[in-house]
Amino acid sequence: MEEISSKGKLFVISGPSGAGKGTIIKELIKQIDVELSVSATTRKPRPGEIHGKSYYFVGMDKFREMIRRGEFLEYAKVYENFYGTPKTKVLEKLDEGHDVILEIDIQGAMKVKKVFPKGVFIFILPPSMAELRRRITGRGSETKEVIDLRMSKTLGEIAYVDQYDYCVINGQIQEAVNRVKAIVIAEHSKVSSDIQGILDEFEEEK
Amino acid sequence: MEEISSKGKLFVISGPSGAGKGTIIKELIKQIDVELSVSATTRKPRPGEIHGKSYYFVGMDKFREMIRRGEFLEYAKVYENFYGTPKTKVLEKLDEGHDVILEIDIQGAMKVKKVFPKGVFIFILPPSMAELRRRITGRGSETKEVIDLRMSKTLGEIAYVDQYDYCVINGQIQEAVNRVKAIVIAEHSKVSSDIQGILDEFEEEK
Repeated sequence: MEEISSKGKLFVISGPSGAGKGTIIKELIKQIDVELSVSATTRKPRPGEIHGKSYYFVGMDKFREMIRRGEFLEYAKVYENFYGTPKTKVLEKLDEGHDVILEIDIQGAMKVKKVFPKGVFIFILPPSMAELRRRITGRGSETKEVIDLRMSKTLGEIAYVDQYDYCVINGQIQEAVNRVKAIVIAEHSKVSSDIQGILDEFEEEK
Repeated sequence: MEEISSKGKLFVISGPSGAGKGTIIKELIKQIDVELSVSATTRKPRPGEIHGKSYYFVGMDKFREMIRRGEFLEYAKVYENFYGTPKTKVLEKLDEGHDVILEIDIQGAMKVKKVFPKGVFIFILPPSMAELRRRITGRGSETKEVIDLRMSKTLGEIAYVDQYDYCVINGQIQEAVNRVKAIVIAEHSKVSSDIQGILDEFEEEK
């Protein structure tokens, strides 16, 4: 009854940095039964990071081999390091009937959308430009130039919102979490190509 | 923040009789801020029914005039009486920014869909055929023939589910109410043609 479709769904949560994606997801995984996709990276672990939980830490050779074998849903090079979403892990969890959450930047989300259009794409927005500036400024000792640069980058990113299925404004954190939860629940009640699955389930309980 | 789009949405809740639409809606209007659409009818009020709340009770002449003026989203004749959904009332509430719930049978829902495709169409299913039979039987002293007729009518109605946006199986009432609530919330976070509204709101709070 809880699960209408027999397979899990992929929820891609994305948006400009400073929107609070991470905080929302942290709350979400406490409250509902979803699995977080773990990325692979070539960067060295930081203190406290756990292999297989924070990231899969792999060497450059291994990462290149994974690229060659098409083992990533998407990957990107950020400065000197590679980051990627392992395809097999995600598909396995979906096949087992688990929902998977993927937290990813906008460029990554657009790549995932191309290879996995069945995913549900959720864009997180900060409550306002003023609040975004406060969040970016509040982080520490960035210069005005750095802050302005981030702000204009963010404005450019927001233009991607129309590529997404849903947009959640992150003002009050609990309110935003509730909205994302509602999206997860509603998506499982959608009448889609899976309608035969719903009817089969209905018949099974005859 | 609560309202992303400036206007309300119309949620059409429908499904075979015996699915428990009425019970779900009764709970729903206690828990979230939605307005229930009140139908007009030519039938006489029953004891306890209130004009403007249960129905708008109108005479046959008035009803025919409303039909002529195109004042119904849909209407139908059931036995000797007419029932209809007053269009103006619904549109007024939507314009004021309220969500409107419309409880209606499948034929009615299909008519509403033609004139108001922007509505969100939710199909309520009983948990199983066995449970449906229990619900139909449990009502009283119907003969086996009547029950069988209702069951086959219901099976025919269920075929319409693919015309709907969502399908909610009504096993546990609170679970079903939560799902419909989630659908209402999620629909307000949808990135649709209304995306400019979201961005405007984002900018306003600058």
